Amino acid sequence: MTVQVPRDFRMAGVYCGVKRNPTRQDLTLVVSDRPAVAAGVYTQNLVFAAPVALDRSRTPGDGFLAVVINSGNANACTGERGLADAREMAGLAAATCGAFGEQALVMSTGVIGEFLPMPKIAAGIAAAAQQLGSDEVALVAAARGIMTTDTVQKLAGRTFVRGLSPFSKGTTAATGHAAVVGEKKGTVPLAADRSIQITGMAKGAAMIGPRMATMLGLILTDAPLTPQSAQQALSAVVDDTFNCISVEGHMSTNDTVLLLANGAAGGEPLAGDDLTAFQEKIHEVCGELARAIPADGEGATHLVMIEVSGCADGESARKIARTIADSPLVKTAIAGGDPNWGRIVSAAGYAGVPFNPRGVELNLNGFLLYRDGAPTAFDAAAVSNSIRAERDTIITLRFSEGEGRVRFWTTDLTAEYVRLNADYHT
Amino acid sequence: MTVQVPRDFRMAGVYCGVKRNPTRQDLTLVVSDRPAVAAGVYTQNLVFAAPVALDRSRTPGDGFLAVVINSGNANACTGERGLADAREMAGLAAATCGAFGEQALVMSTGVIGEFLPMPKIAAGIAAAAQQLGSDEVALVAAARGIMTTDTVQKLAGRTFVRGLSPFSKGTTAATGHAAVVGEKKGTVPLAADRSIQITGMAKGAAMIGPRMATMLGLILTDAPLTPQSAQQALSAVVDDTFNCISVEGHMSTNDTVLLLANGAAGGEPLAGDDLTAFQEKIHEVCGELARAIPADGEGATHLVMIEVSGCADGESARKIARTIADSPLVKTAIAGGDPNWGRIVSAAGYAGVPFNPRGVELNLNGFLLYRDGAPTAFDAAAVSNSIRAERDTIITLRFSEGEGRVRFWTTDLTAEYVRLNADYHT
Repeated sequence: MTVQVPRDFRMAGVYCGVKRNPTRQDLTLVVSDRPAVAAGVYTQNLVFAAPVALDRSRTPGDGFLAVVINSGNANACTGERGLADAREMAGLAAATCGAFGEQALVMSTGVIGEFLPMPKIAAGIAAAAQQLGSDEVALVAAARGIMTTDTVQKLAGRTFVRGLSPFSKGTTAATGHAAVVGEKKGTVPLAADRSIQITGMAKGAAMIGPRMATMLGLILTDAPLTPQSAQQALSAVVDDTFNCISVEGHMSTNDTVLLLANGAAGGEPLAGDDLTAFQEKIHEVCGELARAIPADGEGATHLVMIEVSGCADGESARKIARTIADSPLVKTAIAGGDPNWGRIVSAAGYAGVPFNPRGVELNLNGFLLYRDGAPTAFDAAAVSNSIRAERDTIITLRFSEGEGRVRFWTTDLTAEYVRLNADYHT
Repeated sequence: MTVQVPRDFRMAGVYCGVKRNPTRQDLTLVVSDRPAVAAGVYTQNLVFAAPVALDRSRTPGDGFLAVVINSGNANACTGERGLADAREMAGLAAATCGAFGEQALVMSTGVIGEFLPMPKIAAGIAAAAQQLGSDEVALVAAARGIMTTDTVQKLAGRTFVRGLSPFSKGTTAATGHAAVVGEKKGTVPLAADRSIQITGMAKGAAMIGPRMATMLGLILTDAPLTPQSAQQALSAVVDDTFNCISVEGHMSTNDTVLLLANGAAGGEPLAGDDLTAFQEKIHEVCGELARAIPADGEGATHLVMIEVSGCADGESARKIARTIADSPLVKTAIAGGDPNWGRIVSAAGYAGVPFNPRGVELNLNGFLLYRDGAPTAFDAAAVSNSIRAERDTIITLRFSEGEGRVRFWTTDLTAEYVRLNADYHT
């Protein structure tokens, strides 16, 4: 584990009694020691949870000092009382650093339709505030506090150094930013090593298990950003990362990805090539976290990458990939080591995206199975063996419409998945 | 079994060697002893099979004398050769009654991407032509010849008598149709009992099992219809019947429903109230057949009816119902007897249909679970017991947008389903 906590963030993960198992953390508190800019991307489900409503109204924005997350209860479908609880939860988190309630954000994940046990949540926030740290132990505890059915915490980090791009110095110098460092209120002197840290944690999109839930992501950085550039960076990468995974195609009421940027690395808000470099790194962090979610799909035996290319645009490619990813027939075939390419091609055919069926080429684990509207003479036993032998299955589907492409991740569908999901939850 | 064969249709179901098991019919031939009008409704999948391409180009139309259907091989993704095979299959069927190839229609269901074994198909058509009958034995054999993983044949029939409506006599008399009976070429004298028979057979939509397939329906009637009224009647009912079922949401390459009307009941083409009465009866036949498909879903333990009402229009209601029906989380919860209403409400929320989340009311097996954006205080154990005790589960979801409604049928999702679908097919 080489993931570090960015400058001036502290965090803790504690058990407060929302989950049944006291050995598992269920509340995470993250504080920033200086006001942070925040951006958010949220579920598009019309039925969205109270914390989503709260955060959506506050982002993009700045002045944030805390984020509090509970697992085990989604605070969804809980009406006015749920909204009041989310507001109170934010207020309690903000109070631990002497801030106003509006300076905190909230995420929840877990069972739908039950009210939050607010005394437990309040005690948990108070306990977490006493344990805040910025070492690896604190980071892992925080990442575990947001987990539901995940079997491992999901963390990813990247560092980059400003001004390394051949163009960035010119850009920075030309605008004369260095001259005003320290003059603007709240601007931090540029760190000596000019490095910027980006660290993210996430939990599973799989609504698997009775305490089913949600995909949550929290990205922390010490980069200086404006609320607008933070929101643009986050929105741009989510489409290619967290929106390119699907475990069972059921969009949750609570899906949320937050980005907090506290500027502790110093200097003026990133612009030009530095901003581009930042976007690349945040893309890597989100991509790594996103892939870790289906890889941890409970009951799954294969991680499936669906690579679709040659579409009219990226959105068309994603629609086709998602339709294949959500087909139970494709997923069960992979679980069974069955090179049933007809299911893949026919799933593409009902994705709602026009294409020329004669211009489709399908490869599975590198074997060419289908081209020019007809099957190839492939060695079915060899393809089957390759599916069975590897945890990763790679479906490559090429169209002849344009340059749109996507990489999409999902899992197979096993009897074990069904058993886990059929458990009685009450 | 009270389903009869309409006048002047004969049929047979035989084994010709497409399926492995020689005790199961795999080819059905239906002939009409007088030229019939035909209408069709087909899969919207862009990747559609050769017989779909052929039938689509021929319907609506008239002059048809034969329909031939094979099971065990879908003749899909088979390119030009597949089209030639479908054309030859139609030609062979037409030849058994001395007709041109264009006077026959074709359906296929079974595995994708393999060429039809044409010698076997030809022998099967010849054998079936020798066994044509119009009794119940022939009808059941024909219905069994189109089956793949279905466990029982699916048949439904209705009879109605023309001119019984309080308005229809006036209508008929006013247009003077009776006077011209027999004068037009090919018009048949009105049957003495003025009755009209509608008989349908269907096979499963479930693409379950390695020899997966397709939803096929064949509706035969001795009603006199124009090609246009036949097409209108069929198109109108399919939306409310066959398009209101889903087993796993995977639209097949071969889905087809054909209506053949040979006019043997005599008289002029149905119009006015008689046509309305006909539409009602064909709706009943298609509805009964459609519901029989998920009821026979292999590996399923519950037949789930999803009743959605109060939507802006019927299409919105169907979209919501289909999204719930296709959610693996909803389906696994029902398999496990889990009244997990949050999964149902959140599935509705991502159906892509706008609605007011505060105006939603959810009942499950008659228990009120959710209203006004918040859960009710229901007896979870009682709801769970009712799911476990009954094969039928009824989900009733009411919105506050308008008058659009639908009844939609699906199955639960069991570990047994996954086991069946993960079997290696090659």
